[in-house]
Amino acid sequence: MSLQIGVIGAGECSAKDYKIAYEVGREIANAGAVLVCGGLGGIMEGACKGTKKNKGVTVGILPGDSKKDANPYVDISIVTSLSHARNNLVVRSSDVIIAIKGGYGTLSEIAIALKIGKKVIGIDTWDVSEEIIQATDAKDAVRKVLAVAKKKGL
Amino acid sequence: MSLQIGVIGAGECSAKDYKIAYEVGREIANAGAVLVCGGLGGIMEGACKGTKKNKGVTVGILPGDSKKDANPYVDISIVTSLSHARNNLVVRSSDVIIAIKGGYGTLSEIAIALKIGKKVIGIDTWDVSEEIIQATDAKDAVRKVLAVAKKKGL
Amino acid sequence: MSLQIGVIGAGECSAKDYKIAYEVGREIANAGAVLVCGGLGGIMEGACKGTKKNKGVTVGILPGDSKKDANPYVDISIVTSLSHARNNLVVRSSDVIIAIKGGYGTLSEIAIALKIGKKVIGIDTWDVSEEIIQATDAKDAVRKVLAVAKKKGL
Amino acid sequence: MSLQIGVIGAGECSAKDYKIAYEVGREIANAGAVLVCGGLGGIMEGACKGTKKNKGVTVGILPGDSKKDANPYVDISIVTSLSHARNNLVVRSSDVIIAIKGGYGTLSEIAIALKIGKKVIGIDTWDVSEEIIQATDAKDAVRKVLAVAKKKGL
Repeated sequence: MSLQIGVIGAGECSAKDYKIAYEVGREIANAGAVLVCGGLGGIMEGACKGTKKNKGVTVGILPGDSKKDANPYVDISIVTSLSHARNNLVVRSSDVIIAIKGGYGTLSEIAIALKIGKKVIGIDTWDVSEEIIQATDAKDAVRKVLAVAKKKGL
Repeated sequence: MSLQIGVIGAGECSAKDYKIAYEVGREIANAGAVLVCGGLGGIMEGACKGTKKNKGVTVGILPGDSKKDANPYVDISIVTSLSHARNNLVVRSSDVIIAIKGGYGTLSEIAIALKIGKKVIGIDTWDVSEEIIQATDAKDAVRKVLAVAKKKGL
Repeated sequence: MSLQIGVIGAGECSAKDYKIAYEVGREIANAGAVLVCGGLGGIMEGACKGTKKNKGVTVGILPGDSKKDANPYVDISIVTSLSHARNNLVVRSSDVIIAIKGGYGTLSEIAIALKIGKKVIGIDTWDVSEEIIQATDAKDAVRKVLAVAKKKGL
Repeated sequence: MSLQIGVIGAGECSAKDYKIAYEVGREIANAGAVLVCGGLGGIMEGACKGTKKNKGVTVGILPGDSKKDANPYVDISIVTSLSHARNNLVVRSSDVIIAIKGGYGTLSEIAIALKIGKKVIGIDTWDVSEEIIQATDAKDAVRKVLAVAKKKGL
């Protein structure tokens, strides 16, 4: 089984943040890992596009009741019909998580991750805990993910 | 249907915070509202005890698979087997929410509440948004809950 | 904590079946138990009405995102936003379950109940297992629920 | 996005049923579809093995809190911590479903599928509805899945 790296962030974002997400997705593909995310737009789409364009595999864990909600770069759609409770599944299905900025939904995911002891690498995200590992850019974030994964034997 | 007031906070807490939770529970009973919480110990138990000792009704939405997990002051047990995803149900089943201090689990509930536009009254809790209405003590918190409920026609 | 008796059945039903559900609700109130159900119309509403008119307490575990979905006889609304996954919560939150006729949703609840070893009393319901205890009418059903509860020490 | 075919069945099974599941998995791989299942043993493992050995992709939607619960042939692990409520996700994430025999858990999945209008192809499974499309063996089942998918434009 491959390393599954989660990317969390808002469903709408600026072109600049979309680019960061794209680069994170690209680095995930280059690392041979699978991208796990919420499957919708914004940061999630940017990351999926970055992974797909670099021959990686993308998983979208969707809140609604249709795989049609997935962005065009999702390979595997998990249709939950759980609304925001699906955030818990994004966190649990990721071995390590990269948070890019984000609104309240992202904050809920960071909180659940910290609650269950899952490591979060943050790029300009919610500053709610010293446990969040800060990263400066996409390459730095994925490098830190891989260091955590190695340390944990994932 | 009665007003349903949620109380969120950690499963373990100091005697001082337990007393604040108890007072919040008491004020909820005095307001004729139903207490909704996660049904476990700490802040949840303090609030349930305060409500029960003042002839109110308490609901515990439990993360595990047994009603035996509920604290002794829970009247109605909702057994979810959803682990932390049950936090979403605590938030959604509450018309207004009072957050007392709290750890990462509480933070996830505050975040979900803010995400779906549910009002949070905070007593010394996570300072993550200006949308959180600050309260100084139990009476102030429930007074502010009732003001929100009145304004929203709940 | 009171005995929590679940009533499951379709969201739309005939006047005759509504009357059976009403009688089941009435017997639940008379037994001093709490009624747990899915909170919507049909069998669920009939049961809630029967319990409420006889001074009992009713709990509706709703699939959608609003307590406004509850029928008028629900006291406590649990708002799940989990769609049909909420069926699992109806089953788990009930100490014993009474199934009245029912469609595929009810069948899913019976199956989950049998899977986790929860007793089901059936009134003219799905004939999928010899483990389902058959009852002839409302009084017989609640009598059998109480016998199960006594035997299990609930 | 590929066609996602669900395979449901018990977590423990006979060698004969494991072989049927293996053949179903093989046919799914040969059809270029993705296998979705509950990720555990028995029928689920047989199907995953059949898909993997034929270069297909497998998804396991797990009920517990660890990807270590997945059988060795799962590529993508979705960790839900939802207990049996995860059955709803298996059903919703599958475009069409193949049921192989099965116990009460499988029955709950068939019921949810029928409830939401998802087609079920059955190999010697629960005989609870004329809506279930009967198949004689693995090849027949996958052929019928593809016919449904074509008809529905999936």
